[in-house]
Amino acid sequence: MRQTELFTKTRKEAPKDEVARNAELLIRAGYVYKEMAGVYAYLPLGLRVIENIVGIIREEMDAIGGVEVSLTALQDKKTWERTGRWSDDVVDNWFKTKLKSGAEAGLGFTHEEPLTALMKDFIHSYRDLPRYVYQFQTKFRNEDRAKSGIMRAREFLMKDLYSFSLDAKAHEHFYEKAKQAYVNIFSRVGLGDRTYVTFASGGSFSKYSHEFQTVTDAGEDTIYVHEKKKIAINKEVMTDEVLADLGVTRADLIEKRAVEVGNIFSLGTRFSDAFELAYVDEKGEKKPVIMGSYGIGPGRVMGTIVETLSDENGIVWPKAVAPFKAHLIVLDSKDADATGRNPARKEAERLYAALATQGIEVLYDDREARPGEKFADADLMGMPYRIVVSDKTLASGGYEVKHRATGKTEQLAEKALIDRLGK
Amino acid sequence: MRQTELFTKTRKEAPKDEVARNAELLIRAGYVYKEMAGVYAYLPLGLRVIENIVGIIREEMDAIGGVEVSLTALQDKKTWERTGRWSDDVVDNWFKTKLKSGAEAGLGFTHEEPLTALMKDFIHSYRDLPRYVYQFQTKFRNEDRAKSGIMRAREFLMKDLYSFSLDAKAHEHFYEKAKQAYVNIFSRVGLGDRTYVTFASGGSFSKYSHEFQTVTDAGEDTIYVHEKKKIAINKEVMTDEVLADLGVTRADLIEKRAVEVGNIFSLGTRFSDAFELAYVDEKGEKKPVIMGSYGIGPGRVMGTIVETLSDENGIVWPKAVAPFKAHLIVLDSKDADATGRNPARKEAERLYAALATQGIEVLYDDREARPGEKFADADLMGMPYRIVVSDKTLASGGYEVKHRATGKTEQLAEKALIDRLGK
Repeated sequence: MRQTELFTKTRKEAPKDEVARNAELLIRAGYVYKEMAGVYAYLPLGLRVIENIVGIIREEMDAIGGVEVSLTALQDKKTWERTGRWSDDVVDNWFKTKLKSGAEAGLGFTHEEPLTALMKDFIHSYRDLPRYVYQFQTKFRNEDRAKSGIMRAREFLMKDLYSFSLDAKAHEHFYEKAKQAYVNIFSRVGLGDRTYVTFASGGSFSKYSHEFQTVTDAGEDTIYVHEKKKIAINKEVMTDEVLADLGVTRADLIEKRAVEVGNIFSLGTRFSDAFELAYVDEKGEKKPVIMGSYGIGPGRVMGTIVETLSDENGIVWPKAVAPFKAHLIVLDSKDADATGRNPARKEAERLYAALATQGIEVLYDDREARPGEKFADADLMGMPYRIVVSDKTLASGGYEVKHRATGKTEQLAEKALIDRLGK
Repeated sequence: MRQTELFTKTRKEAPKDEVARNAELLIRAGYVYKEMAGVYAYLPLGLRVIENIVGIIREEMDAIGGVEVSLTALQDKKTWERTGRWSDDVVDNWFKTKLKSGAEAGLGFTHEEPLTALMKDFIHSYRDLPRYVYQFQTKFRNEDRAKSGIMRAREFLMKDLYSFSLDAKAHEHFYEKAKQAYVNIFSRVGLGDRTYVTFASGGSFSKYSHEFQTVTDAGEDTIYVHEKKKIAINKEVMTDEVLADLGVTRADLIEKRAVEVGNIFSLGTRFSDAFELAYVDEKGEKKPVIMGSYGIGPGRVMGTIVETLSDENGIVWPKAVAPFKAHLIVLDSKDADATGRNPARKEAERLYAALATQGIEVLYDDREARPGEKFADADLMGMPYRIVVSDKTLASGGYEVKHRATGKTEQLAEKALIDRLGK
């Protein structure tokens, strides 16, 4: 994509009321736009990052048998009264609204209730199980404060998968598969080395739930990390009993700040009981369905990547989520060639087209701007590779390629460059 | 996809309170689920149809220079007060809600205001124009009645593109390109032959706006169609002056019921004036940006296809939007073969895998069910082709392929079948 066709621009300063580092960088680099506190629009580059993260999550959910749907934001009061979660005393972050008739409706902050009600149409027999249903859907949460940028928004995209299993054993089996899928996701988006499967409070059905916590000072949680076992314990459940369960001692644990980037939870029969979601087994006996829920927010993942991987010059995207693998920069030639054209720009245009032919889409800074401005913008915007075409590189017969994460620079010929970007 | 892995099932009856033919069929066939009046969840098959329609629209928007973003549902009261559209007296279908602070927020029913405000950050000079920005986003409209199924929902996906042009001439040029893109879209989704560019009321900037009206008795609008010119006039603007403008006479027009599946509108400076969205031209003079808006609802398109193309047996999907190009049905063999296996099922499994290898994903009815049930479900669900594998087809050495739209049946060998589906 040509930068002159991208309508966004970088800016020196974020809005004064923006206190989160992730939103500050993302706004300055033109990835998001602050609509209200905790409410962010995604601009072209930001949308590309979100779509890359969504694509990775979708692949992992499909791989464990997930089937995709799209439920609704508007929620029926009657559905939520069945579990008692309509009440603002029970759930303190509802957004509610009113239909023309005067009837109340809510804006979904999660979807256990409506999906359990829906599955009653489709689950009757043991032959109808198991089912794994997921969606990417906008959730609304009326947060008291909204000071964490896109890491805790009032409106945000969430992937939520719900499992419907025959019995506890079948549930456990899927739960472990889902846990591994989550490990894969965080590894693929570039957060694997700093994300811990964290033991957190369970419910009546299961002693623990599992959070995926990424270590960062921007996090709101405190966890105790066991480096060797690559697990952690949420401060909320840190007791001698839990230490004994996990076979670890306090001495092995290090306290860290972290952000919950995903969580998986055994729901047992809490929702299937409330909605009488049951099936008839092979012997003709009626049994409740065992459920689980598995959540992850692509926006929070994006915010966490920015918080943890950026440096003093700006954002550093891992290759798998970057809006473009490379930022192609042309520094216009000082002198025109015999045909009156600008040799560096001519070569940059040619390379841009050649990369496109290879299926490599780069962001091409084709603006007429000073080199310093182009370099600063490239650092701020954070593509994994920066490719420079200039009089200097033309003379050397190669392209100057800088790796954003390490700062390392090399001279690469076209073929080597294509190999590097295609990897 | 195997039907045993699809959690939805067909049903004989739609919910009693469902009066729209499109929702009735879509619910019975397992494409959508009614959450509340005018609020529908999309099940796996329905989501695939929506994604196909979205894909077609996205291609056409990209082809005319559109750049994709994703704005927010939650809307700031202050933004909408600038045009007077916050008031419920001016806009009668707002859904409004409250933040914890007590401040009011709205749920976007359209996005002229927030996008115009946003573009102020990025449009300053004539060099920043033109810009064409679009999104696929959930809109909320508090409809009084909701009796048209997914054709007029309270919550629905909408593609809205907004154009920002230098002057009236540049705007007109893009407007015509967008009009052609819309013609392409309706042709590609299978509604081209019954969709008319319809003259409707304009605004202070432009005498007319243009609606895309698809003829159907389920529509809420009345239009006057000029078959030869392939245009129509909305009843609301049907005057002698308009007839003269278009060079047509009343005698050439036929009154029809129709549904508005898209609309394009010249906004002039209505929003750029309200938000002071201006640019400095080459002479250093400040000028207002000329805007246009271009809307189309994928759900309404889907509902309109069902209303207009279905028959007494169920839905008939055009190939470009069908969730799967074909429905592969196995009728289990009466007798096992020498190895104790069921020859028809063995062959159906082989064909299912062979088609997948060719990149042709079919819906495979691998259920153990009666032939009559499978055939009725296939007709109701509406894939363009039905492929039967049975003892009979095994004996004949080909597959029975039925074209859903025409009812025509042929016997095809594997290669001919792949050619047919790949087209």
